[in-house]
Amino acid sequence: MKSKKKAVILFSGGLDSTTVLYYALSKGYQCICLMFDYSQKHNKELLSAVKIAKSVKAAYSIIKISLPWSNDALTGKNKDIPIHKRLTKTVPATYVPGRNTIFLSYALSYAQSVSAQTIFTGVNSLDFSNYPDCTPKFIEEYNNVLKALKTKITVQTPILKLNKAQIIKLGIKLNVPYKDTWTCYNGYKKPCMECDSCKLRAKGFKELKMNDPAIQ
Amino acid sequence: MKSKKKAVILFSGGLDSTTVLYYALSKGYQCICLMFDYSQKHNKELLSAVKIAKSVKAAYSIIKISLPWSNDALTGKNKDIPIHKRLTKTVPATYVPGRNTIFLSYALSYAQSVSAQTIFTGVNSLDFSNYPDCTPKFIEEYNNVLKALKTKITVQTPILKLNKAQIIKLGIKLNVPYKDTWTCYNGYKKPCMECDSCKLRAKGFKELKMNDPAIQ
Repeated sequence: MKSKKKAVILFSGGLDSTTVLYYALSKGYQCICLMFDYSQKHNKELLSAVKIAKSVKAAYSIIKISLPWSNDALTGKNKDIPIHKRLTKTVPATYVPGRNTIFLSYALSYAQSVSAQTIFTGVNSLDFSNYPDCTPKFIEEYNNVLKALKTKITVQTPILKLNKAQIIKLGIKLNVPYKDTWTCYNGYKKPCMECDSCKLRAKGFKELKMNDPAIQ
Repeated sequence: MKSKKKAVILFSGGLDSTTVLYYALSKGYQCICLMFDYSQKHNKELLSAVKIAKSVKAAYSIIKISLPWSNDALTGKNKDIPIHKRLTKTVPATYVPGRNTIFLSYALSYAQSVSAQTIFTGVNSLDFSNYPDCTPKFIEEYNNVLKALKTKITVQTPILKLNKAQIIKLGIKLNVPYKDTWTCYNGYKKPCMECDSCKLRAKGFKELKMNDPAIQ
């Protein structure tokens, strides 16, 4: 039997990366999920991620990352998750400096070690265009670094140019279990529905005239 | 008083990065040393690094990195540091997949958080040209990633094209305390003088007809 092509998936257990995981599975990849514990304010995301990875029988690894210098709203101890009336137009307070660059460098290390030739990430340039590490240009330049390293590994971004409704539409075709995904920046029992991340997700389901199965 | 320009130094306490630290200090930078504990087989390097950083009153941060998938000779539990009669021409067994890419991504995060505009690294393409993450092309492409991230941060590599003797010559001008640096891949009481790293260092001092002050 020919062995399957392998891919490392940057995986958070959220709506975007779960869609990407199911996309990679649908393309015949043996998926290896890479998750990060970067001192987020809660571990709901990671619990979702592990549950979903197990459910598709994907191997996974959780890497603990400490960024003692970071003072962003996602990891900083004294900052609150901001509540905006509208989505912000500047770099959001939830931007963790260098985050995707760090994630991709670990994914590279993992991919080289297990001979995977693809790294999938759920970065998305439309909705959160103010995160500088979620742009097409960033991904393009990162792929040039991988070439300079003489690897055959490439970063693939299947949802880079989709909006939230389009991502959900794709995911529903792929049978993504959205009820198990966790998107909220806060770690309450239920999604807060007030943070940017919750709002964006709700907007996506609303555009499709669907109920979010994670909201009971 | 005008505040000093800041730089993050990728710092291991070895001969190369200590020379780079002193170079950055000589150029008037306020230096912030970034060190990594990546499950090396020994912590002699880190002890040297902390001692040197303190001696020049540089701020420092030690980041613990785990790469559970790595099976290289520097971090793998069941592998020995290789002893070669000559320096190898292929990628050495001591290559840690993605290592410099990971180091640079943390340096980026640190630099963004403290508003440093320069990252200094002691990568060196001449002697260890077989490490794919120590080449001029790799650094050039990494700098393009930093541009794509819309930062003004650049990676600078003052010893990229110097051989070991030239590095030591530069360091002596800058009063680098080579007696305090640790270069050996092994963590014995004294440098083993058999690993590639020891041999290269010894060759450098020999070319300059000097005794290595770290060897008693």
